[in-house]
Amino acid sequence: MYSQDTIAAISTAPGIAALSIVRLSGPEACQIASSCFKGHNLSEVGSHTAHVGKWIHPKGSSIDRVVVTVFQGPSTATGEDVVEVICHGGDYVAALILESLLDQGARLATPGEFTQRAFLSGKMDLAQAEAVAELIHASSQQSHKISLAAYEGHYSKELERLRSAILKLCALAELEIDFTDEDVEFADRSTLKNIVETTLSQISDLLTSVRLGTIVREGVRVVIAGRPNAGKSTLLNSLSGRERAIVSAYPGTTRDFLEVDCEFGGLRFRFIDTAGLRQSMNTIEQEGVDRAHKMIKNADILVYVYDIAEGLNSDDTSVLETVKSVPSIIVGNKVDLVSETTSSVGLQLCAKDGPKAIEPLVDQLLELAKEVYGTADVAKTVTNARHQSHLKNAHKSLSRALKALHDDQPPDIFSMDLHAAAKELGMITGAITNETILGEIFSRFCIGK
Amino acid sequence: MYSQDTIAAISTAPGIAALSIVRLSGPEACQIASSCFKGHNLSEVGSHTAHVGKWIHPKGSSIDRVVVTVFQGPSTATGEDVVEVICHGGDYVAALILESLLDQGARLATPGEFTQRAFLSGKMDLAQAEAVAELIHASSQQSHKISLAAYEGHYSKELERLRSAILKLCALAELEIDFTDEDVEFADRSTLKNIVETTLSQISDLLTSVRLGTIVREGVRVVIAGRPNAGKSTLLNSLSGRERAIVSAYPGTTRDFLEVDCEFGGLRFRFIDTAGLRQSMNTIEQEGVDRAHKMIKNADILVYVYDIAEGLNSDDTSVLETVKSVPSIIVGNKVDLVSETTSSVGLQLCAKDGPKAIEPLVDQLLELAKEVYGTADVAKTVTNARHQSHLKNAHKSLSRALKALHDDQPPDIFSMDLHAAAKELGMITGAITNETILGEIFSRFCIGK
Repeated sequence: MYSQDTIAAISTAPGIAALSIVRLSGPEACQIASSCFKGHNLSEVGSHTAHVGKWIHPKGSSIDRVVVTVFQGPSTATGEDVVEVICHGGDYVAALILESLLDQGARLATPGEFTQRAFLSGKMDLAQAEAVAELIHASSQQSHKISLAAYEGHYSKELERLRSAILKLCALAELEIDFTDEDVEFADRSTLKNIVETTLSQISDLLTSVRLGTIVREGVRVVIAGRPNAGKSTLLNSLSGRERAIVSAYPGTTRDFLEVDCEFGGLRFRFIDTAGLRQSMNTIEQEGVDRAHKMIKNADILVYVYDIAEGLNSDDTSVLETVKSVPSIIVGNKVDLVSETTSSVGLQLCAKDGPKAIEPLVDQLLELAKEVYGTADVAKTVTNARHQSHLKNAHKSLSRALKALHDDQPPDIFSMDLHAAAKELGMITGAITNETILGEIFSRFCIGK
Repeated sequence: MYSQDTIAAISTAPGIAALSIVRLSGPEACQIASSCFKGHNLSEVGSHTAHVGKWIHPKGSSIDRVVVTVFQGPSTATGEDVVEVICHGGDYVAALILESLLDQGARLATPGEFTQRAFLSGKMDLAQAEAVAELIHASSQQSHKISLAAYEGHYSKELERLRSAILKLCALAELEIDFTDEDVEFADRSTLKNIVETTLSQISDLLTSVRLGTIVREGVRVVIAGRPNAGKSTLLNSLSGRERAIVSAYPGTTRDFLEVDCEFGGLRFRFIDTAGLRQSMNTIEQEGVDRAHKMIKNADILVYVYDIAEGLNSDDTSVLETVKSVPSIIVGNKVDLVSETTSSVGLQLCAKDGPKAIEPLVDQLLELAKEVYGTADVAKTVTNARHQSHLKNAHKSLSRALKALHDDQPPDIFSMDLHAAAKELGMITGAITNETILGEIFSRFCIGK
């Protein structure tokens, strides 16, 4: 147990709803809650039991009828005594209950402080704690799976496996240093090199997964482009109407593009509708067109729409030429307006016919997304920028150690780099940590977590 | 027990948060929850116990680690078996848990269905059920107190007291009808009249409380008016900055006024800043001025602001003359800009000096609000339009009965009206009810309640 005070916070989202939860954690949790709760004496009830009664401000009036659940430490989320007060929803009642708890000696929890206490009492490591925040923000099947796996410790296990492999090498290197006068090699150099190489390649894989991690977290950026009136906005509408899982629609900051978030096949996509591509004398429109070109270049996937009746012209092909490196799907739209089947490029569809009509496009999008970004191994996908930075440093140090091994340097040379690499991996799971890092990580959590 | 199926819903507000609650009620609650919960068999655990474990979709993958609390009927909120699943917050995890429950045979609860079941199983009457919704929407000390009192049954008791007094009279009248040939008077007519008169006056009091009830629910509408540049907006800023309990700020629909909700002294106020009053050639501005005049006339309280250096002129006094019936506070603003203390009308203050400087105004507002609208007797304040309508009907019927008594009519004449009055009161608490009314009432609740 690290902290000695008792913290309290509202743990549910604000707004009109049936129920809210106010949570307490700390040595005085039961005593403080008891002073407001008119039912059982919560210090005397069994752990993991729920009690119904009135909640009354000790200095004042009735606040609500509530259900109070008592969890006695150390077998609790934070390792301390935890009390959860389930009261009526809406913001007013929960705020009054919180106020009464603060009045009775609890302290308002800082953001993430419940999770921080869980970490400090050894209930979870740092990567697991960070996964809690990601789990809460999950917005697609993939992001949910990856954050849940990390929360359950699968990702941490992977990192600890890598770290302990490096630490074993460190131990060997140190033995050699101790016996350096005797010129003994405790470890066969080629075995050492092999282990370092394998570890390096596994860290490389993790670093490669960062791109997938970003996509899982933020969605695959699909830019819809084409000449004016090709049917881009209609296509966007059909895409967003296809599934109920639309997250949101953002009006473009400069009115020249529109973004819509959808989930298809467990993956989150962000569709961006851009201004029709043409030369314009109107400076505002031209600004929109310039932005569209920029967005096409930065797309994860480009969906290029053209009007089948008009066909692809030289403007279209020159645009496609400049962004050859961007994975693209070409869509011939308005197939309903051409009588005979003209030989045309790409998918043929009629965007205005709605979700059903664009299914072939969605299938290709999913295929392309999987092909380009791989399928996530949930235990080995990095979604966190902090982790990425530690992994990069570990990779650098290990590469230096490998070079030293290749150059047949003495153990004290590569031992330092091995230690540095192990330290970087340890900082991800919190095996090695410090107050500043912790403060920074948990301050990004929401209050009540 | 009325219903035989098991309902489920997310009971906490949507949005990013530490925790969410998914709730189940019905005969299969434990069994359905058990099929997804990997911990104890919830059908075999004790009532009011909490259990930690994994939540897994029976047909698929892991969803979360949760705390499940089991409440065995009939000693539960709904009278049925209830299971509460506390999972990680954010919308994705809770939605997956709900989905798994629906997949296992639960039905998505309709709005207010949990409370409706509580009513149907006799856990609370209709007025108490409606108070739950008001408690959730409470936004000030007063609205919280009144809705809590109603939820706890104090208001229902008051109504049942009135209703049983009327029902006693009905019984007496019926006895007389039965023995009508014998021309017996079982009840002394003057006693009867007294009882009807007392009941009538108590119903009148309840009807008078409707205005207070509306104010408690919606806030006291304080219109801030005056000539341009008198400092109205500055005053509004200081008012809204005075307390942390600002509920919200609405931009005017036509950009000509601004509304801010604040709580002072436990009462909710809605301050409305209006366009400066002057004749204008600009039609848009003139439209704003016309609206301002209308709002002044409909204000609960008018705060009329003028610039002390300029004094009240004939335009000001003519505005004040036209709204004599509206309780008003006159404020001489910019007291800092006049060197000597000029004799002036109303409060003198400097709005731009912030919350402290306007305290005298807030004190007068509170005093005026209490004076004009009375202090709420929490058990006798009507906040519900449905109740108001039943009370009005009861009042009409009782008045007719009283007239019949005064005219010395036979018991079968006033008995009918007494019955009608009792019925109307019974419809408030749900002693008398029907499916349609119930459906209408509970459909206005939020889902999960």
